[in-house]
Amino acid sequence: MKVTLSSLDTCESSFTPLVVLELAQDVKEETKEWLKNRIVSKKEDGGAQLLFRPLLNKYEKETLENQNLYLVGASKITLLLGAEAIGLVKECNDNTMRAFTYGTRHNFKDFDVRRLLTSGIVIQVFPLHDNEALKKLEDSWYTRFTLKYQPLDRIRGYFGETIALYFGFLEYFTVALIPMAAIGLPYYLFVWEDYDKYVIFASFNLIWSTVILEVWKRGCARMTYRWGTLVMKRQFEEPRPGFHGVLGINPVTGREEPLYPSYKRQLRIYLVSLPFVCFCLYFSLYVMMIYFDMEAWALSLHESSGSEWTSILLYVPSIIYAIVIEIMNRLYRYAAEFLTSWENHRLESAYQNHLILKVLVFNFLNCFASLFYIAFVLRDMKLLRQSLATLLITSQILNQIMESLLPYWLQKKHHVQVKRKVQALKADIDATLYEQVVLEKEMGTYLGTFDDYLELFLQFGYVSLFSCVYPLAAAFAVLNNFTEVNSDALKMCRVLKRPFSEPSANIGVWQLAFETMSVISVVTNCALIGMSPQVNALFPESKLDLILIVVAVEHALLALKFILAFAIPDKPRHIQMKLAKLEFESLEALKRQPSENIEEKAPFTKEAKRENQMKLMAQNLKEDSREGNEEEA
Amino acid sequence: MKVTLSSLDTCESSFTPLVVLELAQDVKEETKEWLKNRIVSKKEDGGAQLLFRPLLNKYEKETLENQNLYLVGASKITLLLGAEAIGLVKECNDNTMRAFTYGTRHNFKDFDVRRLLTSGIVIQVFPLHDNEALKKLEDSWYTRFTLKYQPLDRIRGYFGETIALYFGFLEYFTVALIPMAAIGLPYYLFVWEDYDKYVIFASFNLIWSTVILEVWKRGCARMTYRWGTLVMKRQFEEPRPGFHGVLGINPVTGREEPLYPSYKRQLRIYLVSLPFVCFCLYFSLYVMMIYFDMEAWALSLHESSGSEWTSILLYVPSIIYAIVIEIMNRLYRYAAEFLTSWENHRLESAYQNHLILKVLVFNFLNCFASLFYIAFVLRDMKLLRQSLATLLITSQILNQIMESLLPYWLQKKHHVQVKRKVQALKADIDATLYEQVVLEKEMGTYLGTFDDYLELFLQFGYVSLFSCVYPLAAAFAVLNNFTEVNSDALKMCRVLKRPFSEPSANIGVWQLAFETMSVISVVTNCALIGMSPQVNALFPESKLDLILIVVAVEHALLALKFILAFAIPDKPRHIQMKLAKLEFESLEALKRQPSENIEEKAPFTKEAKRENQMKLMAQNLKEDSREGNEEEA
Repeated sequence: MKVTLSSLDTCESSFTPLVVLELAQDVKEETKEWLKNRIVSKKEDGGAQLLFRPLLNKYEKETLENQNLYLVGASKITLLLGAEAIGLVKECNDNTMRAFTYGTRHNFKDFDVRRLLTSGIVIQVFPLHDNEALKKLEDSWYTRFTLKYQPLDRIRGYFGETIALYFGFLEYFTVALIPMAAIGLPYYLFVWEDYDKYVIFASFNLIWSTVILEVWKRGCARMTYRWGTLVMKRQFEEPRPGFHGVLGINPVTGREEPLYPSYKRQLRIYLVSLPFVCFCLYFSLYVMMIYFDMEAWALSLHESSGSEWTSILLYVPSIIYAIVIEIMNRLYRYAAEFLTSWENHRLESAYQNHLILKVLVFNFLNCFASLFYIAFVLRDMKLLRQSLATLLITSQILNQIMESLLPYWLQKKHHVQVKRKVQALKADIDATLYEQVVLEKEMGTYLGTFDDYLELFLQFGYVSLFSCVYPLAAAFAVLNNFTEVNSDALKMCRVLKRPFSEPSANIGVWQLAFETMSVISVVTNCALIGMSPQVNALFPESKLDLILIVVAVEHALLALKFILAFAIPDKPRHIQMKLAKLEFESLEALKRQPSENIEEKAPFTKEAKRENQMKLMAQNLKEDSREGNEEEA
Repeated sequence: MKVTLSSLDTCESSFTPLVVLELAQDVKEETKEWLKNRIVSKKEDGGAQLLFRPLLNKYEKETLENQNLYLVGASKITLLLGAEAIGLVKECNDNTMRAFTYGTRHNFKDFDVRRLLTSGIVIQVFPLHDNEALKKLEDSWYTRFTLKYQPLDRIRGYFGETIALYFGFLEYFTVALIPMAAIGLPYYLFVWEDYDKYVIFASFNLIWSTVILEVWKRGCARMTYRWGTLVMKRQFEEPRPGFHGVLGINPVTGREEPLYPSYKRQLRIYLVSLPFVCFCLYFSLYVMMIYFDMEAWALSLHESSGSEWTSILLYVPSIIYAIVIEIMNRLYRYAAEFLTSWENHRLESAYQNHLILKVLVFNFLNCFASLFYIAFVLRDMKLLRQSLATLLITSQILNQIMESLLPYWLQKKHHVQVKRKVQALKADIDATLYEQVVLEKEMGTYLGTFDDYLELFLQFGYVSLFSCVYPLAAAFAVLNNFTEVNSDALKMCRVLKRPFSEPSANIGVWQLAFETMSVISVVTNCALIGMSPQVNALFPESKLDLILIVVAVEHALLALKFILAFAIPDKPRHIQMKLAKLEFESLEALKRQPSENIEEKAPFTKEAKRENQMKLMAQNLKEDSREGNEEEA
């Protein structure tokens, strides 16, 4: 395969448009020329070695208003090389698109698209949907309503591992909920009318929530091993777009880049963000108290009149509260994003961690505080059941509508408008491509899997924390998730821009979040069991003994939980074996290297080079050790 | 530095004896010759490229009874190369010995000293002490009784990282205990005669035990970063000596080696080891009950007669019980070692984990069960205090005597005997070397840091679990540890054979063990606080509220503990920066590689090679994915 790369690369015949670049209206011609050079020129010269052309020619530009749209593409050979460089060789044959969307991210980084975005020269960069592949994916995914597993490998091929993992987790979680629903349904319908005897259900809850998370870890490892991302080489993280500061030398990379002192960020976090979060939490509790006032008012109204009509009224406060909670969650989400962005974190991962922490704490309190209050302060199991049911169902319905159906409907309306416009113009251009670009340009951007996981996390909370008093919760969750799969799929395929694909080895911080929730659920379930009349009947004389026993059992369960989590291996055995084999082979290869060098009777230059290296290393290490000693002294 | 390695290597002039090999008496001459060849021949031919000579010549052998002792040494150049290969370049100038003792381990592995040991051809292999370096080390370490930090870098230079880390931890732990002792001492002497008001002390305990472990992690990272083992390349683990099974092909390495089916090991663990451990635990509880009978008998005797003499008698049951506990611990230790070895684990790490688990569970119950029983069942704080004091002090005294002083005394006696014998023989040989080899041959072997850490672990238990009722515990622990440093140092330098040095990045599983203990200590301290008269006085009417509040506080503390452990970074910031820099540099180097290849305009062969590799990779990945799919189906 001896080829001169440059000749192949500049030949425009094999051009396939893959990514769209929208520039600001007032960008000068020189800037465009410079940008084009950076994209087209070869890697050795610091370019991205890609193809670049405007969407419209000069004549077309004058007739149509969308002026600054450019297409970036690649020839087959660049795709292959890019795929090889990032180890995505498997993809080459069947899925060059994906290799490209991933590979391009890094090429783009080389000429720092981040700065272009921050400075406003580039308005947006996004990959185009591949209509053919998308159609195929949709057919096997959600258009036909049959009960089968999702085509996760295809989803991963089109959208990348991070999104495929979300759908995998959603599916796994739904399947895991089925036994809960299956036990809860007859429980609700036949056996105990007063739900007081929920000890067995709570015990089941305990075991269930521990086991499913451990089993998921193994399933996830199996999946990502197959995808080749389980043992992923970590990429060095670049500063996130939007990070700003005084130009200086980064002590780690030695590059000139904006620096922002850590103490300033700490000040912003502790003096502004933290008080704001605390205030929001307080406000949320305040709203909760208003809800309880409303609840009491509705109850007194019902008791004084006692009609059919007022018994429906009993549900109204819960429904209003559920809607208020949703609104508050969304508003807080924007505020948290703004604040975290203002904290000016250098790395995307640090930004994400701070955002997730802020949002999780608030959402947890906002959604569950009223339930905790009802369960452990008011100790009103009937109200708890009613409140739980209303909160769960209302939030699920709201989510489905706001997240997928409404945007899809808006999208469709917009689509028709654009089509009509293009037809009216009757311009002499490749109408399909133009239409697609204009349409996708206006589509929403997928902001990552955060909100989707958050929704599942809250659902997991509703089901695991209190479902023993409302066994139908799991059934509603299952029902919701079945439609959620489809509406999320619709959202990804038809409502949003195609996202750059992002590799990942697991669901990251969400595993921790779900595990924390399951620890909390052990505590609440034990407390609920301790409060049940059934258990209380066993200790008619001494409340004290009852509490001590419940506490002892709870501690034992928590200990068992940690031991289980520790004892169950995170990766299935056959994958451990394969990883061990890979590691062994790479270690063997390393071992062979130095002896080869000796055998080769290397020339003086190489020998001298090695000696120099040794000296350098020794010097570095000595310096380090001196530094270390100084610090200790 | 262009040199012909082989000429330098075989030149015997620079021979320094470093390791002694003792062969069995009945080993044939051919075997010796083969072994010699394996050791002397060059790396390319599969040898260890070392020097080898018998300790005695033919004439001497006839006059002296120690016949099959051989010395293995190395020339300077092998040392340097070995050090480079394992990245110990820093050592070259000042500490070739250590580089050697580490490097040799791996060279020896190449010709599988394990099989020679199992088959009984080689009786033992051990490195010789370097008397000059040892003298220097001792002078700066323990011979002069001054209050200063240990020379950890020197210890590491002579004994390796694992042992140096133990001494570092011992020192750190002792220093960390000083505030506890400083608070406890006046507490005991002046303030509260009846120790009932221990709430403040228990609260201090809580914070102390969490903080010291987190701080240690950071200190440990700082230390091992300086030593270069913090980011250590993991070596592929070979089967441990003693592992046996039917010869077969290892699926990971593809090598022929003994295989032992996993289910057989599981059977041994669950059908023999587990019941045995349970029986031992039961037996330990049975002995505890006998102790309580004795205690009751002594008390009744004291009460009936009431003399001075019988008030001393009150301590006798505790002392006897403490001695019995020590004996049981030691006996159990042998049994556990035998059982774990019989379970036939393939890897040393698996063996160690199973052994540690067995021993920790038993020792924890054996040492602390009586204290838990007294504290929470009998609720007799006076007896708890007395029992704790006797157990702690007796076990510390016994340990110091059994571990170092007695062996040192025996060793000295033996030394005198050997010297007399050698002088009587008046053989015409290098008497010093001969004397050294014969002496060290009979010295005990250091079995690893296990027992030393275990001792500290139990001490940590005594101090953190119950010390609030006996504030002197910390002071006794500090006192013990000051002498422990010296007696352990004496043991390492004068009583035991020099161990092969072993690199390590942290104290491994012991960090987890100590953290678990500190979680348990949160629970016990909260319970002790809840039981204190001082707190009980705050809730004169309702015991129920008291318990609920204590439980709530305990949960909050545990949550805080986990959050703290999560929030405090395990590595200090400046080390994180340095590691990030290292990682960045290696990633940059990786990035440069492919583009260099393109620039080089590589010849056809290289290009073809790469293409082949790509194809191979793609094929492998496809096969994997197919396997994965089949498994899912």
